[in-house]
Amino acid sequence: MNYRMVAYSVGRITAMASALMLLPLFVALYYDESIKGFLIAIAVGAVLSALAVLFSKPKNRQIFSKEGFVTVSLSWIIISLIGAIPFTVEGEIPSYIDAIFETVSGFTTTGASILENVEALSRGLLFWRSFTHWLGGMGIIVLMLAVFPLSNKYSMYIMKAEVPGPVKGKLVPKMQDSSVILYMIYVALTAFEIIFLLIGKMPLYDAILHSFGTAGTGGFGIKSLSVGYYNSAYIDIVIGIFMALFGVNFNMYFLLLMKKYKTVIKNEELLWYIGIIAFSTVTIAVNIKSLYGSFFTSLRYSFFQVSSIVTTTGFSTADFNRWPEYSKMLLVLLMFIGGCAGSTGGGIKVARIIMMKNTAKSEVKHMLRPRSYNQTKLNGEVLDKQTIHGTLVFFLLYIFIILISCFLLSLENFDAVTTVTGVIACVSNIGPGLSLVGPMGSFAIFSPAAKLLLSFCMLLGRLEIFPVLLLFSPYTWKKSSRF
Amino acid sequence: MNYRMVAYSVGRITAMASALMLLPLFVALYYDESIKGFLIAIAVGAVLSALAVLFSKPKNRQIFSKEGFVTVSLSWIIISLIGAIPFTVEGEIPSYIDAIFETVSGFTTTGASILENVEALSRGLLFWRSFTHWLGGMGIIVLMLAVFPLSNKYSMYIMKAEVPGPVKGKLVPKMQDSSVILYMIYVALTAFEIIFLLIGKMPLYDAILHSFGTAGTGGFGIKSLSVGYYNSAYIDIVIGIFMALFGVNFNMYFLLLMKKYKTVIKNEELLWYIGIIAFSTVTIAVNIKSLYGSFFTSLRYSFFQVSSIVTTTGFSTADFNRWPEYSKMLLVLLMFIGGCAGSTGGGIKVARIIMMKNTAKSEVKHMLRPRSYNQTKLNGEVLDKQTIHGTLVFFLLYIFIILISCFLLSLENFDAVTTVTGVIACVSNIGPGLSLVGPMGSFAIFSPAAKLLLSFCMLLGRLEIFPVLLLFSPYTWKKSSRF
Repeated sequence: MNYRMVAYSVGRITAMASALMLLPLFVALYYDESIKGFLIAIAVGAVLSALAVLFSKPKNRQIFSKEGFVTVSLSWIIISLIGAIPFTVEGEIPSYIDAIFETVSGFTTTGASILENVEALSRGLLFWRSFTHWLGGMGIIVLMLAVFPLSNKYSMYIMKAEVPGPVKGKLVPKMQDSSVILYMIYVALTAFEIIFLLIGKMPLYDAILHSFGTAGTGGFGIKSLSVGYYNSAYIDIVIGIFMALFGVNFNMYFLLLMKKYKTVIKNEELLWYIGIIAFSTVTIAVNIKSLYGSFFTSLRYSFFQVSSIVTTTGFSTADFNRWPEYSKMLLVLLMFIGGCAGSTGGGIKVARIIMMKNTAKSEVKHMLRPRSYNQTKLNGEVLDKQTIHGTLVFFLLYIFIILISCFLLSLENFDAVTTVTGVIACVSNIGPGLSLVGPMGSFAIFSPAAKLLLSFCMLLGRLEIFPVLLLFSPYTWKKSSRF
Repeated sequence: MNYRMVAYSVGRITAMASALMLLPLFVALYYDESIKGFLIAIAVGAVLSALAVLFSKPKNRQIFSKEGFVTVSLSWIIISLIGAIPFTVEGEIPSYIDAIFETVSGFTTTGASILENVEALSRGLLFWRSFTHWLGGMGIIVLMLAVFPLSNKYSMYIMKAEVPGPVKGKLVPKMQDSSVILYMIYVALTAFEIIFLLIGKMPLYDAILHSFGTAGTGGFGIKSLSVGYYNSAYIDIVIGIFMALFGVNFNMYFLLLMKKYKTVIKNEELLWYIGIIAFSTVTIAVNIKSLYGSFFTSLRYSFFQVSSIVTTTGFSTADFNRWPEYSKMLLVLLMFIGGCAGSTGGGIKVARIIMMKNTAKSEVKHMLRPRSYNQTKLNGEVLDKQTIHGTLVFFLLYIFIILISCFLLSLENFDAVTTVTGVIACVSNIGPGLSLVGPMGSFAIFSPAAKLLLSFCMLLGRLEIFPVLLLFSPYTWKKSSRF
């Protein structure tokens, strides 16, 4: 383990995260609010990063994939701890553990909240809260790579750990260029959404914050009724469509810019993603029709909720907790599936689901004829054995983590639906679950220990398990790289 | 596909299953009850098997693993259809679909029941119902192999499909001998349980039927209160211990007979199995203490229920539906785990859980050092890649089947806990779930379509997915073996 190199990089990331807090600080200034919280947080970040960078100017710059993983995990933990400071200093979230939960929920783009009355928050803090979604969505470290380049190899390891999905495609040979392109597409899409929301007469402040929440597929609202507050079919449709767009693999947008339309149209994951949204929207609309009278109103609520859940955003326009069991169960299934690989969405990812389906098919063929040679494909390309194995182990750990967390959380003695959907909503980075943690509920009901457990679940989900899990392996912390 | 050979074997198995119905027929005669149902069922079985055997005396005796799988799946379906006949003919379960559910539940050793008042059943039918557990536990086809040997290769394929577990160890080189030894151990253990229950002053008829239910880890009771009816600490402990014994890999008993004590003591799966039972029993006892007053009473109820659920038997002495959330969640986790490989228990099996845990560990090491060579072990032996891959795919399909079945069953619009635990209880061959399908509930609430779905789930669980899934692959039914 190259400790100095890791400390140096984590220091730089901390410095940048602190600098980014100047933005909400200015918002607070603009609205004449206290900036003490932001100042203290920025100061803490500055001191920590100065220490890390000063004391450990690395001589040995050799790094392996484990250094990349550890850099990402540690950075995420540290920036969450710093990002939580303003909420507690300003007294708006008095418990620091609650503030950590809220900040981790922000950065991981989960959107689960312990706030029972979000409208009581000051405007600067609300802005920061939604801004964490935007930063966490595309990856704060990817942002750093775009601004301050590291070596190409190190960048690759970091992208591998931070960008979701089973197969990491480089857009262009140089990693820094890849991250710049990703962020440009991200900024452009976010800007488009703000404009469309302004056309729908949403105030600028609200439009920016909702676009942050959509872009990161986060889901922190700024009203207790979430997007339902605006009660506008236009706004529902705009946000619904943009959520779906941010759940698409960003490589697709790059391909569109390169005019490679055919490759996009033939993308297996994209087709399944669209198919899943269409199927769920229509069948849920039929299922809830009796609640809303007209089929078109049902379709509006259904599309918004399906798009919100499959992309793991978590906005709501209706209390889906009251929908019939079929709709609720389908939404829970969508929580598992999640968005496309290489999008800002969480969950298992559509690409992995397709891969697993194809792997199961191959296995059945193999059983029928043990000596035959079977390949598993994704998007027309043959997958290598290690990728398939890694995906199966990922799924295994995903389910194990959910089961173990449900087991631990059951000590809180809430009903099973609250416990199970609460855990799934955190691991898959959705936000709301069902029952007590439904769209009209809150995670405030849990004990501090449970909130830390769920924060951990959110980190596991966002960083796709392995980088976080590595922190607990003794092999990671060995000085010698031999074992 | 060698159709003639499959038809010939299925015919023989059907003939034997029909012959075995003579036993409940004699019981019915003894108690002066109607035997019309059994006679018709035996006649149907005789005609079907005569047709199959007559019309298809196979010339070509060449078979591959797929013929083995298809033989097992088809036989299980056909004997369930025949076994259901007496219930409907006698009018005691008027709907034939209900009778199929009950019979599949019997043969698969699930123990889920659609009967709301089991005490109303005649004694002959009750005997048949519990006898299906006993036959299904060790495998009706394994029994046939013990009595009428087939070629060694065919037998191996059949054992592979019918005996649960990821790695099938042959006890002795000749398959017929293996199946004879297995059945001898099975008969001996069942006899011991009957004797111990008689010592506890349980009537002979009750003792035999409860021993059938325990041996197959089935769980059909003959009283509405299940084992709770006897309200005897002695009986609870005897059945509790025997359930745990039937959840152990039968190879262990063989090794004990061979005096290979060291191999048994060092068996990784056995140690984990005992550890899981001990941990669950103690923590649940602490959790439910406030309900039962004394710690020893809690321990008695806790041990019985843990042993019943982890072995996937499903007997109950208490309404665990009313226990606190921790106990209920832990019981649901135990439903997933199940018994040991090579036992009569269902579920994923302890061996597979250990294997998956070890695989995940290897994968983490591999991520830390991609070029290192990692092995996954079980019981000290290195597992080959295909076994690991097969286990991961099995787990994947297990979870997919549960999720898809929950989705379909949610159309019935029962609460989520009923739907989800109902499905898990069927796929893992437990019997009772929670909420409406809890130990005091019944599966009668579901529609006929849902009952067929759940019957299918039970078969998938008992035959460990692949043999049943193969029936739906077009490759299985191709005449030529080339594809």
